[in-house]
Amino acid sequence: MNDPLAFAAEQRGRFYRELDEFLRIPSVSAKSEHNRDTRRAADWVRDQLTGAGLKAEVFDTPGHPVVLGEWRGAGRDAPTILIYGHYDVQPPEPLELWDSPPFEPDIRDGRIYARGSADDKGQLFLHIKALEAHLTTRGRLPVNVVVLAEGEEEVGSPNLVPFVREHRDRLAADTVVISDSAMFAPGLPSLLFSLRGLAYFEIHASGPSSDLHSGAYGGAILNPANALARVIGDLHDDNGRITIPGFYDDIIEPSRETLEGIRALRFDADEYAREVGVTPSGGERDYSALERMWTRPTCDVNGLLSGYTGEGAKTVLPARAMAKVSFRLVPGQTPERVREQLERHLARVAPAGMELTLIELHGGRPWRASLDGPVFEAASRALERSFGTRPVLTGEGGSIPIVVELEEMLGANTLLVGFALPGANMHAPNEWFATDCFERGIDTLIHLYDELAGS
Amino acid sequence: MNDPLAFAAEQRGRFYRELDEFLRIPSVSAKSEHNRDTRRAADWVRDQLTGAGLKAEVFDTPGHPVVLGEWRGAGRDAPTILIYGHYDVQPPEPLELWDSPPFEPDIRDGRIYARGSADDKGQLFLHIKALEAHLTTRGRLPVNVVVLAEGEEEVGSPNLVPFVREHRDRLAADTVVISDSAMFAPGLPSLLFSLRGLAYFEIHASGPSSDLHSGAYGGAILNPANALARVIGDLHDDNGRITIPGFYDDIIEPSRETLEGIRALRFDADEYAREVGVTPSGGERDYSALERMWTRPTCDVNGLLSGYTGEGAKTVLPARAMAKVSFRLVPGQTPERVREQLERHLARVAPAGMELTLIELHGGRPWRASLDGPVFEAASRALERSFGTRPVLTGEGGSIPIVVELEEMLGANTLLVGFALPGANMHAPNEWFATDCFERGIDTLIHLYDELAGS
Repeated sequence: MNDPLAFAAEQRGRFYRELDEFLRIPSVSAKSEHNRDTRRAADWVRDQLTGAGLKAEVFDTPGHPVVLGEWRGAGRDAPTILIYGHYDVQPPEPLELWDSPPFEPDIRDGRIYARGSADDKGQLFLHIKALEAHLTTRGRLPVNVVVLAEGEEEVGSPNLVPFVREHRDRLAADTVVISDSAMFAPGLPSLLFSLRGLAYFEIHASGPSSDLHSGAYGGAILNPANALARVIGDLHDDNGRITIPGFYDDIIEPSRETLEGIRALRFDADEYAREVGVTPSGGERDYSALERMWTRPTCDVNGLLSGYTGEGAKTVLPARAMAKVSFRLVPGQTPERVREQLERHLARVAPAGMELTLIELHGGRPWRASLDGPVFEAASRALERSFGTRPVLTGEGGSIPIVVELEEMLGANTLLVGFALPGANMHAPNEWFATDCFERGIDTLIHLYDELAGS
Repeated sequence: MNDPLAFAAEQRGRFYRELDEFLRIPSVSAKSEHNRDTRRAADWVRDQLTGAGLKAEVFDTPGHPVVLGEWRGAGRDAPTILIYGHYDVQPPEPLELWDSPPFEPDIRDGRIYARGSADDKGQLFLHIKALEAHLTTRGRLPVNVVVLAEGEEEVGSPNLVPFVREHRDRLAADTVVISDSAMFAPGLPSLLFSLRGLAYFEIHASGPSSDLHSGAYGGAILNPANALARVIGDLHDDNGRITIPGFYDDIIEPSRETLEGIRALRFDADEYAREVGVTPSGGERDYSALERMWTRPTCDVNGLLSGYTGEGAKTVLPARAMAKVSFRLVPGQTPERVREQLERHLARVAPAGMELTLIELHGGRPWRASLDGPVFEAASRALERSFGTRPVLTGEGGSIPIVVELEEMLGANTLLVGFALPGANMHAPNEWFATDCFERGIDTLIHLYDELAGS
């Protein structure tokens, strides 16, 4: 047998069992109580890479380990691709909302339910199996391959950039391939034209030096929770536009072709409403839901806390109020610039008698793909071969901050080709990955390596 | 010795020791783990009343007990006064902000620091000692007295109204006297002309059916935390006025004399700022701080909760957001009417795609005193005799909902004469009661019973 596709079909049962094993490791990077599990997941990835026929190694970092796999047998003239993925997962909480336990994978109705099934263990695993299929059946790959699997993507990849910088020569590649995103619809594959960036803050409002009786003091002094609510509420105008001066100034609009492509996509608002429980009615009034998600920045409250939040009525005038507020950014915007704009804005709108403090928690730059060129064409052909249809161009509302960093450090272009489906609950309870996408995903990647060899 | 004042002076040391004993009982009514303590506090009050020379009894209720003390030896022609107080206290949390433990009274710098020292154990205790001083030295009181001490004031007195209704005949009185409030300033006694009412709600905003990834979904759908912030922020206009239509319509303004009295009071904004940590800069722009606290309604956020509130950046678009919002009401307003107005307002401002739910947690009507008549005069003379100065008229921003109920059920007028000082931290850490007020308070009440006999 020298057909990787036939091999993948034949070995499918084992592939499912191995994925099950991978998903059972609760490699939650945000919680130090899982440090042993992230380590275990790193070792598991290394062993898989070795089993597939690559040279693989686990590197310690000040945080969670990085796994590096290499196969360089395609020769100097063949391109080198770097496959990036992450073996860490989001915290599974709230646990009571899961229909089956997050770290006990359960296949029902054509879906593999487990934390990490889509984001990103399942998709990283597709690559490992496609590499294994090539190497086992043909003894070689059509391209040189470097696999870079990190364990800190869900906590902002704090140690990846230093790692990449240190191993820049070893990681040098022509193309970075990342499968950590979603297709536009079942059966309709897609290639990403952009990722949004992120600027994540806490805003603290502080008023009186301690909590006060809301009867005795109410009306005399400014309530920091009321005041913060007003500041947050005023961050949008009646048309859903963000009111921070200059916020939209730096945006570089997508190309006409990209916008036309978006408009040609069939967006099913009813299906969307069924999935998330509400109609897509937020955001800027003058843009469609897809445009708002893919091409427009946002300002979302991620958390609010003030005063008494337990049961019943406590008549307290809170001393403090806190909001976690994050902005998704689009090309042209940077976290640094948005921070400056927000800081200036808060200084201007802070009412007398209240201090507003801004704390920056996290940031990442937006990314836009190079849509022409042989790599994009190669990927389109690979997807068409396994899905029977040309991919559409889609944006991604989320952020993969490392994409920009990798491109800059390695001088490579990035191809983002993901196999999750919309509504996969990637950061929520009941995360899932479709079995159909699991199987076609492996086939696609088998084709992709072939196609990239000629690109 | 037949001079109650001399007796009180002589017995002062014992009085302090007994108060210390009372304050050591952690009679937190809000927490069922303290049920034994509230019971112990009720028994302690009964024993004190008995020791003072009254007939006293503890009554069970579905919640915490009611203590009833009686002395009816003044004869049919003498007036009957009902002294109301409460032996329960607010929860002491946050404990780490107390300089000395809340239930280990500590006298420093002329202040008794302990939970309940001012609200209301200390002030209830003043009455018991004044009664004891009369009965011990003279063998009688100049008026008939009923003492009603409840253990649920801090949780909204759910069982007091049924109790009073059931024992209406036994509780019949000409005047209700309550010491559960503050003086205007050290050395400057005051009588209350009004109490604000309360209407306390939770507002819940619900959006998507579960928490979503703020990258993948941000911009496409309405964020309930942003939307709720906007609703809350818009409850006030730029001048600090509440924007709910009709909210101010039913207010009955205070008398000209009352307003002039308020304007004549010296309000020290710097001292206030030192005490609470911020300048009195909130509320309606066209009113002074004292007017805002005493004669104007408020809308204060008491609690906010949404999304992720732990450490660091979680990119969640929350499914829900909650605000605890309470209104202080002034005469003319009722909790029922404000609820209707708020409900209508929320229905009108709720954005498309978001459900706003209103839950009423607690309500109480405002109260205004009858400022003319012999009772007020009697109280003024009593205060002048012990403090050497005529009392001023003050309002109270807080609520004692039972005042309105008692007046209606018993057909009596109420006299509110309190001895706490501004900044006593009545619902906050480091609650205190001035030793000077403790001593003069007992003297004042000794005078008050005499004065009321002739009223």
